[in-house]
Amino acid sequence: MMNPKIQAPLIRIEPPFWYAGMQEKELQILFYGDAIGQYFIETSEKGIITKVTKTDNPRFLFVTINVKWDYAKEIIFIFKRNTKTVFTQKYCIKQRRENAADRKGFDSSDVVYLIMPDRFCNGNGPNDNDKTTNEKYNRDLPGGRHGGDLNGIIKELDYIKAIGATAIWNTPVCLDDEHEFSYHTYAQSDVYRVDPRYGTNDDYVRLSAELHKRGMKLIHDYVTNHWGLEHWLVKDLPTRDWINVFETYTETNHKRTTVIDVNASKIDRQQCLEGWFVPTMPDLNIANPLVLKYLTQNAIWWIEYADLDGLRIDTFNYAEPLQMVKWTNAIMKEYPNFNMVGEITQRNHGILAYWQKDSKTGEIHNFNSNLPSLMDFSLCDALQMVFNEDDGSWDRGMTRIYDSLTFDFLYPNPHNLMIFAENHDSKRLNYCYNNDLKKYKLAMVVLATVRGIPQLYYGSEIGMAGDQYIGDADIRQDFPGGWDGDEINAFDPNLRTEEQKSYFEFTRKLFQWRKTRPEIHFGKTTHYIPEDNIYVYFRYNEDDSVMVIINNNREERTIATKRFNENLEKYTTGTSVFTNRSTDLKNDLTIKGKSFLILELHQAQ
Amino acid sequence: MMNPKIQAPLIRIEPPFWYAGMQEKELQILFYGDAIGQYFIETSEKGIITKVTKTDNPRFLFVTINVKWDYAKEIIFIFKRNTKTVFTQKYCIKQRRENAADRKGFDSSDVVYLIMPDRFCNGNGPNDNDKTTNEKYNRDLPGGRHGGDLNGIIKELDYIKAIGATAIWNTPVCLDDEHEFSYHTYAQSDVYRVDPRYGTNDDYVRLSAELHKRGMKLIHDYVTNHWGLEHWLVKDLPTRDWINVFETYTETNHKRTTVIDVNASKIDRQQCLEGWFVPTMPDLNIANPLVLKYLTQNAIWWIEYADLDGLRIDTFNYAEPLQMVKWTNAIMKEYPNFNMVGEITQRNHGILAYWQKDSKTGEIHNFNSNLPSLMDFSLCDALQMVFNEDDGSWDRGMTRIYDSLTFDFLYPNPHNLMIFAENHDSKRLNYCYNNDLKKYKLAMVVLATVRGIPQLYYGSEIGMAGDQYIGDADIRQDFPGGWDGDEINAFDPNLRTEEQKSYFEFTRKLFQWRKTRPEIHFGKTTHYIPEDNIYVYFRYNEDDSVMVIINNNREERTIATKRFNENLEKYTTGTSVFTNRSTDLKNDLTIKGKSFLILELHQAQ
Repeated sequence: MMNPKIQAPLIRIEPPFWYAGMQEKELQILFYGDAIGQYFIETSEKGIITKVTKTDNPRFLFVTINVKWDYAKEIIFIFKRNTKTVFTQKYCIKQRRENAADRKGFDSSDVVYLIMPDRFCNGNGPNDNDKTTNEKYNRDLPGGRHGGDLNGIIKELDYIKAIGATAIWNTPVCLDDEHEFSYHTYAQSDVYRVDPRYGTNDDYVRLSAELHKRGMKLIHDYVTNHWGLEHWLVKDLPTRDWINVFETYTETNHKRTTVIDVNASKIDRQQCLEGWFVPTMPDLNIANPLVLKYLTQNAIWWIEYADLDGLRIDTFNYAEPLQMVKWTNAIMKEYPNFNMVGEITQRNHGILAYWQKDSKTGEIHNFNSNLPSLMDFSLCDALQMVFNEDDGSWDRGMTRIYDSLTFDFLYPNPHNLMIFAENHDSKRLNYCYNNDLKKYKLAMVVLATVRGIPQLYYGSEIGMAGDQYIGDADIRQDFPGGWDGDEINAFDPNLRTEEQKSYFEFTRKLFQWRKTRPEIHFGKTTHYIPEDNIYVYFRYNEDDSVMVIINNNREERTIATKRFNENLEKYTTGTSVFTNRSTDLKNDLTIKGKSFLILELHQAQ
Repeated sequence: MMNPKIQAPLIRIEPPFWYAGMQEKELQILFYGDAIGQYFIETSEKGIITKVTKTDNPRFLFVTINVKWDYAKEIIFIFKRNTKTVFTQKYCIKQRRENAADRKGFDSSDVVYLIMPDRFCNGNGPNDNDKTTNEKYNRDLPGGRHGGDLNGIIKELDYIKAIGATAIWNTPVCLDDEHEFSYHTYAQSDVYRVDPRYGTNDDYVRLSAELHKRGMKLIHDYVTNHWGLEHWLVKDLPTRDWINVFETYTETNHKRTTVIDVNASKIDRQQCLEGWFVPTMPDLNIANPLVLKYLTQNAIWWIEYADLDGLRIDTFNYAEPLQMVKWTNAIMKEYPNFNMVGEITQRNHGILAYWQKDSKTGEIHNFNSNLPSLMDFSLCDALQMVFNEDDGSWDRGMTRIYDSLTFDFLYPNPHNLMIFAENHDSKRLNYCYNNDLKKYKLAMVVLATVRGIPQLYYGSEIGMAGDQYIGDADIRQDFPGGWDGDEINAFDPNLRTEEQKSYFEFTRKLFQWRKTRPEIHFGKTTHYIPEDNIYVYFRYNEDDSVMVIINNNREERTIATKRFNENLEKYTTGTSVFTNRSTDLKNDLTIKGKSFLILELHQAQ
C-alpha cells in the first residue's frame, strides 16, 4: 500500500500512516496546514473519530480515531467548511508484519555494538551534503558532519558480527538540522524521517533487515526529553505548552535525584525536569497529553516500521516520571517481550535500582517505571579506573568491581542491566588505560563474563582512544577505514596494524566464545571477596560453569583453589578459553600479572 | 525482695532473677555448678517446667519455666538425685516497675551524649583497682584503665544536661576482664555485672534514676556478636558450639555486604558472620537457641533492672540476620514503644536502608530487621570532610550533605536515624578541622537541624581532638577535669579556658534551642541543591518553620530569597537564633564566610 500524497492545504500528517491490530486502538493524527484548524472533519468510515482537538495555533488539528479493525485499510478524511467538502485526504492503516507484537527484545545473550553513524563508515558519498539541511559536510571539523551513514553500517555488518556483537545501537538517526554540531543527532528536527545525510527511511528498514538476516538486532535511540531548536514543531508550536519555557533561558540543574528525593524543593525538581538540556534542545512538555501521545506513537511507529528489536531511551530521568511511565507502559503493552534500556545516569545503585521495572524501592512511591533495562553506570566507573590500581586495599582495585556487583539484590532483574566500559559520553577505555592492551583485555573479560548485556563502543576493539574532556569529538573520531582514502583500513583484516590486530583478535575471540555460553547469558553468579587484588567469580547454571580469575597485580600470582570449593566440588578440570589448556582443579592456579584466566569447568568422565 | 543466696554446689544462676508479667512467658534459667547436669529438677510450683536441656558439659543445666503469673513470687527449685532432694534453690520472680512495658525509647526530640565511662570522670577513686579483676589502674598508659566510673558520670549529669543533651549512651558497662585494653569494655566477661571499676549494678540503677530525675534517658550499649576471652562461659563452654570456632584462628573479613549480596559465596558470608572480631573476642553462635535466648533475656533483664530507655547494638550486622531478628523481635514485643539503634557500618544508603524496620529493600529478601534506628555513617563521613572543601563543585562541599539526605526515601523512618559527626571509632571532628571553631560550629548546626537523632561525643564540646589512626586512645582521651589534680577542669564553667568556653557556649546554646523546636524533632525537610557551596534547607510542621543557611565559602556571600519562595511565602520575617536579630525575608541575606544563619520564621502579625 503506497502512502498517499498529502493534499493541500495540508503540509504534514503525523504519523504518516499507521498499523491495524494494535492493542491501543486510539490513534491521534496530527494534521498540519494553513488554517487547518478551521475545518470540520469527517471520515469515510462512520463513527471512528473519537476526539478532535484544536489548539491556539490554527495550523494544527489533532484528530483521534479508533482503529478497531485488524486488517489493512485506507480511510479518507473529509475536510469541510460550512458543511461543504473542501478537500479529502487518504490515510493508510497498514497490515503489521507477522508476529510483530511478539517481537523479542535484546537480552543478556546479546552483545551490543554502539555506533555514531556520522563517524563509523561513509558508505554513500553523495549524501554527505544535502540541499535541504543546514550543516554541510566538513570532515576537517572535529565537531562537524563527517559523512558516515547507514549504507556504511550495512557495508560493515559482517565486521561487526565478527567481533561477536549481536546487536547494534546507533545514536539517533532521525534528522538533526542544527546549524552546527548536528553530527550527534540528539537535537532532532523531524522524528519521522531519517537524516538524509545518513540515508533514507528505506535505508533504515534495509539496515534492520540486513541485521535480521544475520541473526542480529537493531536498537533505536529514542529521545523523549527534548528535540532540537530546528524541529518544525518547535518552530511552529502546536500549543504554547508543547515545550517547557521559563521567563529566561533555564537549563536543567542535572540533579536527577530531585525526582525521587522526598526532601527536594519543588523548584529544583521542576528545573531538573523542565530546564533545557542545552540551549539548542528545547525541553518537551510530556505532561501535555498531545505531546505524550505524539511521542508514544512515534516510538511505536518506528518499532513497526523499522522492525526494531529494542529502544535505548536517552535522558530517561530528565522527564516527569509519571508521564514517562505512561510512555513505557504504552510500548510494553504493545510488545510484552520487547526490551528498552533507559539512560539513567546515576552512579549509586541505591538510586539507580529505583528505575527498573518492578523495583521494590520504586514501590516506596507506588512507582513502577515499567522500564525493563538500565545502564549500569556504576560498573562503568569502576571499569575505567580499576586496572590502574595496582594495590588491592579495602575499597580499591578489584574490590570496585566486586562492590558494584554486591548491589544486585536491589534489582528485580540484574541480567537486564546494560554493562559497558565506555560510551559516546565517557572517556574511551583505551584512553583511561593509555592503550595498554593488557588492561583493555581485563575490562573486556569483565564485560564478557559478569551478568548483564555487554555494550561495546565502536572502534575500541581496534584500539581507538579519546578523552571527552578534550572535547566530545575526541571520543567520537572516525573509524579508520570508513572513508575512501583513509590511511589505515581497520575493517580489513589484512590492512590492520599489528596493534589493531591484537585488539581485534582478542575481542573477537572473547565475544564469539561468549555467544556459546548460556551460563554467562542467564546463569547465576557467585563471587569471592577480592584478596590481594585478585577477583574470582563463577557463572553457572545447572549444566555448566565458568570460573573467572582476574589478577590485577603487576606481578604473577598463584592461588590455591580450596577457598572456591563450593563452586568447584562438582568439577575436576578446567579448560582455559584462550589457551585450550586443561588444568587439574586440585592444583594451584598461576596467573600472570595484569592477566586473567577463564576456565570452562568439566566433571570427571 | 532480696535476691536469695546461691546454694552449693551451684555457682551461678542466670538470669539471677526475673520479672512477672512479661509478654514472653518462657524463661530459660542457666544453672551452673559442679556436676549440676546430673540432677533431676523440680519446682515448688507444679507444672511450670517446660523444658530441661543438658549439654555435653556436666556443669550446666538449662531449665525453662513458664512464668504465667503476673505478680512477684519466690519459687523453689528442688535438685534431686535418685528421687532424693539434695538441695533447693530459691529464685525470685519480681514485680515490674509500673508501665515498664510501655517505656518510651529515645527519639528525634532527644540529643544523645556518648561517653566512654573509663575516660569521662573518676567519681570514685577507691574502685580504680579491684582485687577480682585482671587489669589494674594505669593512667599513664593511653590504652590502660584510667579510672573513670559511673559515679563520675552521675556527678557530671548537670554538665551534660547543660549542653542540651537529653540522653546518654555509655560504651558497655559490664565487666571486661581482659588483661589489657579492657577500658573499652567491648570484650565482656560477665554480662550480668557492671565492671567493678565502674561501680556496682546498684550504681548503674542509680545513674538511670538520676537521669530520669532530670528528664533524661539512658541508652545501654549491647553486644550480641561477641564476648571477651575471659568470659566465664567462654572459659567453660556450655556447649561446644556456643561460640564459632574455625580450624585455625579466623577473623571476620568485615565484608558486611556478603550478608545481603545474592552473589556472595557462602564461605565469605560465613567468615563475615562467624569470624572473630579480634583475637580476644570470641564470636557468639546465636544460631544456637540456648545462646540466642541467653542474649535476649540478658538484654531484657537490663531494660527492666536498670530501667533503660534504649539500646545501642554493637556490630549488629556481624551476626546472622535471621537470628538477630528473633532477638530484636523479642525485645520489641516486650516494649513496643522502645528504641534501639544498630551499629551497621555501611556508608551506602542503598545498603544501610535495608536494615531499618519495615525496609522495602529488606522485603526483597522477605527480611524485616525490626530494628527501629540506624546510625547514619554516610552523613558522618560527609560531616568530617565537607567544611574543608572550599569549592562547591558537582559532588564536593555542601553537596555532600545534600546528597546524603537525598536517600531519605529509602528509609521507612529517616527521623529514626542516629546522626553524628564522630564517635569512639572515628577521627574526632576537631581533629578533622584542626580545631577551627568555625567549622565545628557548622558541623553542629547540621547535626542540630537536619532530620534524625543527634549524637555528640564527650569532650568535643570543649574542643577535644584526636585521630584514630594514631591509636584508639587518641580519640578516647580523658575529659579534662574528670580527675582530681587535672590541670584544667572543663566541667567547671569558671575554670574552662577561653577556647573551651567558646566551644561549650556555642554547643549549649544550639542544643538548648533545639530542645524547644518540634519542627526540627519531627518536622518535614525541604532542601535546595547547594549552589556556590551554600546549602539552604527548611525544617517545618504545620505551625512552625526554621530556615537554615550554611555558607561553606571562606568569604561572605549574599543570597536572594526568591528561590525559596515555596518555603517562605507564609512568612514575612525571620529571627536569627544566635543574634535575635529580625530580618525581612524579602531582603537579600548576607552570611559571613564559613558561617551560618538559622532563622525562626514568623508570619505577619
